[in-house]
Amino acid sequence: MAETFSSQLVTARGLVDRLARRSPARLAVSSFAGVVVIFTLLLLTPWATRSGKGASIVDALFTATSAVCVTGLTVVPTGSFWSGFGQVVILVAIKVGGLGVMTLASILGLAVSRHLGLTQRMLAATEVKTTRLGEVGSLIRVVVITSTSLELLVALLLFPRFLALRESVGDAAWHAVFYGVSAFNNAGFVPTVEGLDGHVGDWALCLPIMIGVFIGSLGFPVILNIMRNRRRLSRLSLHAKLTLVTGGILVAVAAVLFLALEWTNPGTFGPLSVPDKILASLFQGVMPRSAGFSTVDIGNMHETSWLITDALMFVGGGSASTAGGIKVTTLAVMLLAIIAEARGDRDIEVFRRRVPAETIRLAIAVTFVGATAVLVSSLLLLEITGWRLDVVLYEVISAFATCGLSTGVTPLLPDSGKYVLVVLMFVGRTGTMTLGAALALRSRRRVIRMPEERPIIG
Amino acid sequence: MAETFSSQLVTARGLVDRLARRSPARLAVSSFAGVVVIFTLLLLTPWATRSGKGASIVDALFTATSAVCVTGLTVVPTGSFWSGFGQVVILVAIKVGGLGVMTLASILGLAVSRHLGLTQRMLAATEVKTTRLGEVGSLIRVVVITSTSLELLVALLLFPRFLALRESVGDAAWHAVFYGVSAFNNAGFVPTVEGLDGHVGDWALCLPIMIGVFIGSLGFPVILNIMRNRRRLSRLSLHAKLTLVTGGILVAVAAVLFLALEWTNPGTFGPLSVPDKILASLFQGVMPRSAGFSTVDIGNMHETSWLITDALMFVGGGSASTAGGIKVTTLAVMLLAIIAEARGDRDIEVFRRRVPAETIRLAIAVTFVGATAVLVSSLLLLEITGWRLDVVLYEVISAFATCGLSTGVTPLLPDSGKYVLVVLMFVGRTGTMTLGAALALRSRRRVIRMPEERPIIG
Ligand SMILES: [K+]
Ligand SMILES: [K+]
Repeated sequence: MAETFSSQLVTARGLVDRLARRSPARLAVSSFAGVVVIFTLLLLTPWATRSGKGASIVDALFTATSAVCVTGLTVVPTGSFWSGFGQVVILVAIKVGGLGVMTLASILGLAVSRHLGLTQRMLAATEVKTTRLGEVGSLIRVVVITSTSLELLVALLLFPRFLALRESVGDAAWHAVFYGVSAFNNAGFVPTVEGLDGHVGDWALCLPIMIGVFIGSLGFPVILNIMRNRRRLSRLSLHAKLTLVTGGILVAVAAVLFLALEWTNPGTFGPLSVPDKILASLFQGVMPRSAGFSTVDIGNMHETSWLITDALMFVGGGSASTAGGIKVTTLAVMLLAIIAEARGDRDIEVFRRRVPAETIRLAIAVTFVGATAVLVSSLLLLEITGWRLDVVLYEVISAFATCGLSTGVTPLLPDSGKYVLVVLMFVGRTGTMTLGAALALRSRRRVIRMPEERPIIG
Repeated sequence: MAETFSSQLVTARGLVDRLARRSPARLAVSSFAGVVVIFTLLLLTPWATRSGKGASIVDALFTATSAVCVTGLTVVPTGSFWSGFGQVVILVAIKVGGLGVMTLASILGLAVSRHLGLTQRMLAATEVKTTRLGEVGSLIRVVVITSTSLELLVALLLFPRFLALRESVGDAAWHAVFYGVSAFNNAGFVPTVEGLDGHVGDWALCLPIMIGVFIGSLGFPVILNIMRNRRRLSRLSLHAKLTLVTGGILVAVAAVLFLALEWTNPGTFGPLSVPDKILASLFQGVMPRSAGFSTVDIGNMHETSWLITDALMFVGGGSASTAGGIKVTTLAVMLLAIIAEARGDRDIEVFRRRVPAETIRLAIAVTFVGATAVLVSSLLLLEITGWRLDVVLYEVISAFATCGLSTGVTPLLPDSGKYVLVVLMFVGRTGTMTLGAALALRSRRRVIRMPEERPIIG
């Protein structure tokens, strides 16, 4: 009896493992879609709303997609529309979505490295001494333990601050956990109506959230790589170094630009003291990574700042992370290709490593598909709403990059517009992740090579 | 005596030839800057304006840059502000600028193909049985003869139409020549105040202009290649085929989209008959190539149409043509790279030819630098003017791509904004052209290759 059950379990695990191995991209997309449907149904129940009336289908679908894709865009205020049960559903959806992203991305990475026959496999795999059968299961375990620990760490840092803000122990714990999960998973959902609005100079609150967001945005392969090499950072993988350096530069540049542009804006940084201005600019510099929290009213920021945020959100965070966008390594590889081209080098080299030429094609593909998704969605929303381009572009890129920053217009969208963003959030979340892997997994070799001919470029 | 003069001539030609060979990119940029300065000075003379007062420095510089870079953006109305002399100066500036672009681009291409040591050299070079010394001179001669013939052809097609519009023979000839030069060089300047405003359904006027613009936008290498292979089009070069196919598809897609989006717009296509609608949409489909003529009020078009135009203008026309943008082959190569990646092919193949992998790096470099120029200029103009993003983005991309389509706000720019566009037009004109060549001309080979490591993309 026990033997049969155990053998069935082995069969089931083998089945998932086989599916993960054969068409991991399809597994990723279909499991995400399934999870979205489940959470939509949960949010449709009357217990999920404060009014007890039940949400509309489009609002439930939007919120579930936004939570599972860790986007953070909302069509109804999380703190006042959803009941306690509804908020727990959202929190669980974020956690499941975040775990799903990290796990599936790692599985995809595993499949790619196995396909490529590299000796240096996905870090996660070597990390846990995997067997063929248990690889996926072990991977999930490592992801769950690591991410939950880091979320709890952020929550522990936040808990005393909420107590100091005269919240009850229960509320403080709930808010600390919600922000911890929401930050590490770059989800950007806030458990209260006012969110972080009054806390623009609150270092004790902002700093843990920023750290949680930044670590979460690095991506699981980088986090594991840092944990393993914490005493010899020079031994970090190329991917980890590129992610850290590019991400760091982007945050610094963004903070400086926001500081300069919003310094005198009466609607944002203008009334703040200088230290508060610095904190606020750092905070806004980290958030396009793609957490989407905000301590100032985005709607009051200059159009210039919006456009800078658009560019930052489009780039997003690290690969196999809960952050969205085309990913920082994609940007880095393209920049490195340009530098190599400018220097006339045959190879793309960085940190004493050579980046294979196929990687550039992947980077172009991801960027191009991303840009096309943003362009098409913008055209659709412009037609549907008749709003201004700046506002539309901001929400669209925010949805694509699962960032969740908003100028405040998303709740005003007609249903058709909401559905456009639902699709875009889903595509933004699963698309870039699976595209890279799906493309890397295919490869046909031909014996006959065509004669070479060079078109003129530029 | 005659011998000394002839030897001096040989020395002078040798000097230009050597400069063209050693640093062709520098030659291109400095000669363009010199030409802009000369035409600015000419437009500053009191005879250049109708009022006789002399234009302001910024307006003269803007107009000269716009004409030499064949952009067509204007800060003052060409037909009423500038005198007959001023208009002739502008026409000559367009002609010199257009010739300069075609010649310099061809010289750059020559330098690249020589550098690469390809047996199949730049088509223009093999075409005219060049000697080492006379290569550049002969090239210029071919460019001048071919382009002038095509401009005259367009002018001849237009002349009877202007007569039929009850213009005097002199006016009709002047307008036909002006439009012929302006169309073939993708300049977009119009000799009258009302421009093409009343001619939205005028096939006899619109069709020759469209054809002139499209042929001009193909670029000199393609035009020569077609002339040589007109009986066996299958023997066209890869570059010519890619330019024709991509350009054709873009025009068709643009026309269909404009037709659908503007069909009922009362400010644009709404009041037109169906055949006029079709002509107008074809016309607007060709113009972002980058001629910048318009038969409808761009300011009245939908934002959606603006965004589509933005994308089309950014792509622009053919390499070594008077059209701007990142060029259609750049787009084609990136798309082909994505297709190759999706199919898992090792090589990028098209029309039974293999596109070398370095070409992709060039394409990324050109696109990335272009996108950065547009982003930075947009940020500057947003700060300077406080206008809406849609309007700013339209003028900025139009200036970068030397397209000259306008929502009508360029004349309202403050001087600082005009200078931003001047720099952008110059960068857009000389930048993409020289970047590709400058990058292709450098190449350092290293003996030691670094170990390969693959960052995660997407
Ligand atoms: K987010
Ligand atoms: K133009």
